[in-house]
Amino acid sequence: MTSFVVVSLDWMGVVVFAITGALVASRKEMDIVGFALLATVTGIGGGTFRDLVLGLTPVFWVRAPEYLVVCVGVACVTFFTAHLPQSRYRILLWLDAIGLAVFAVGGAKIALTAGAAAPIAVAMGVATATFGGIIRDVLGGESPVILSREIYATAALVGATIFVALVSADASATTASIAGFCGAFALRAAAMRYGWTLPRYKSRPGRSPEDI
Amino acid sequence: MTSFVVVSLDWMGVVVFAITGALVASRKEMDIVGFALLATVTGIGGGTFRDLVLGLTPVFWVRAPEYLVVCVGVACVTFFTAHLPQSRYRILLWLDAIGLAVFAVGGAKIALTAGAAAPIAVAMGVATATFGGIIRDVLGGESPVILSREIYATAALVGATIFVALVSADASATTASIAGFCGAFALRAAAMRYGWTLPRYKSRPGRSPEDI
Amino acid sequence: MTSFVVVSLDWMGVVVFAITGALVASRKEMDIVGFALLATVTGIGGGTFRDLVLGLTPVFWVRAPEYLVVCVGVACVTFFTAHLPQSRYRILLWLDAIGLAVFAVGGAKIALTAGAAAPIAVAMGVATATFGGIIRDVLGGESPVILSREIYATAALVGATIFVALVSADASATTASIAGFCGAFALRAAAMRYGWTLPRYKSRPGRSPEDI
Repeated sequence: MTSFVVVSLDWMGVVVFAITGALVASRKEMDIVGFALLATVTGIGGGTFRDLVLGLTPVFWVRAPEYLVVCVGVACVTFFTAHLPQSRYRILLWLDAIGLAVFAVGGAKIALTAGAAAPIAVAMGVATATFGGIIRDVLGGESPVILSREIYATAALVGATIFVALVSADASATTASIAGFCGAFALRAAAMRYGWTLPRYKSRPGRSPEDI
Repeated sequence: MTSFVVVSLDWMGVVVFAITGALVASRKEMDIVGFALLATVTGIGGGTFRDLVLGLTPVFWVRAPEYLVVCVGVACVTFFTAHLPQSRYRILLWLDAIGLAVFAVGGAKIALTAGAAAPIAVAMGVATATFGGIIRDVLGGESPVILSREIYATAALVGATIFVALVSADASATTASIAGFCGAFALRAAAMRYGWTLPRYKSRPGRSPEDI
Repeated sequence: MTSFVVVSLDWMGVVVFAITGALVASRKEMDIVGFALLATVTGIGGGTFRDLVLGLTPVFWVRAPEYLVVCVGVACVTFFTAHLPQSRYRILLWLDAIGLAVFAVGGAKIALTAGAAAPIAVAMGVATATFGGIIRDVLGGESPVILSREIYATAALVGATIFVALVSADASATTASIAGFCGAFALRAAAMRYGWTLPRYKSRPGRSPEDI
């Protein structure tokens, strides 16, 4: 039962991220191949980076081709339905928050299983949750949203940290996963609902932004 | 004899892609180091990605340094000759189509040899044929051409699919390679000659492009 | 003693590159997570690429998490002090030159140790010294500085070449390292002081920049 939930959430993360990639393709009025490419890099990009630096090769989607197939399928469906009323945009944001929380915990878990130290596991959680979106934005010609907007990577950081801390404190994997997921999701949800942001760096007299 | 042709085509692919990278450098009026870098990432970028995700490390050009040497050599030659009458631009487009077809089949073949499943092999064919150009465009500050123009990745997709399908149907590797190469090349050639494109996604009432 | 100097220089390289990443984040007025991400990719991006293509996985910062911790620490310090009088900008440029020289030699040394051929070792020196900055500029939405300005990658190329040539000629590792470091640093220093650049490609009659 637990593992069914975990697997379902994992797939939800891949699907939701793939949709956000396809929606960027729709904004750029790409053809269906562009949809498939952006959906795929967004859905599996973060996990690919994680597997590469941990040395877990072939990477996960080479071992389990369903991931690739699902991403391409999502791209096709989005290609023909993206014009539908965008009331679903709000739903998508919430699904994306779930995906973020799932990947943050899942990435950290895989890193710990591979023998990585605690700070590396936290970093892998953040990377798994965010690098797909970064690649999507670079390829789509947009400034990486993660670098300039509301609390997003921070939520992944909090979730992965909670998970790793609890595992280090000998909590069960299930407990740690649930706590990490809830922490990341709650922070992201609150940030969306109340518009929370972290303070930005502001240039001050004595140094103008044109410098360096 | 067959393998001589295969090796020759493989080198032609690397050389042609390296030239396209150097030509982007010439548009940006870079120095010779910029030429060498863009030529190299374009010529060997796709295969590097393929080897990394398949776990075939060290990657091919670490095992066979000639690839690197040839890419740098191509950059140097282009640096001193790119101003020549551009009547050769048309020739280059056709050579590029050959490179695309060769890499699509070759990438899929290497993936199958490494034990990857059919959909992964097709994806590796497309990635080998297109990722070098994507990296070139990102580094050169251009919108990745593959995401917005005529039939290109699609031709690689068709060629890799033909190859993998025939191999799965127990055709000989030679037959499958030739069929895959011809399929990719013919589609790309027709697209160039007749201006074929895939239909683009068009935003429709009910959803404006500014959304999401 | 020698190895103490080597280790100190290696850390100086990581710290200095991390600072340059954080300064790009300050120009874009990012929040502290953006600072941490840009500082980290700049500080360890080049070495990550090197380890991946050489097959040295898990990559170095997974094996030694201190690198990650230091990059994040540098980002935090920079976040609160980047507004200080920028007289230190000049100091930073000189530290950056040291980092460039250290990474060029260190990258080549690691490649040789891993059994790579001479041209690959030179390329790994250049990649280790420059790819972090390239990723920083792509993520920060800037044209990769390495592709368009003064002598930079060239200095790394010279340093790595000197090192590899001397090792091939049976010089001691220490001698080769010092000579390579001095070569790279001297060239970069002279380029900064006298404004040296390599000749750029200039479009000439018979080919307009708009072509291809």
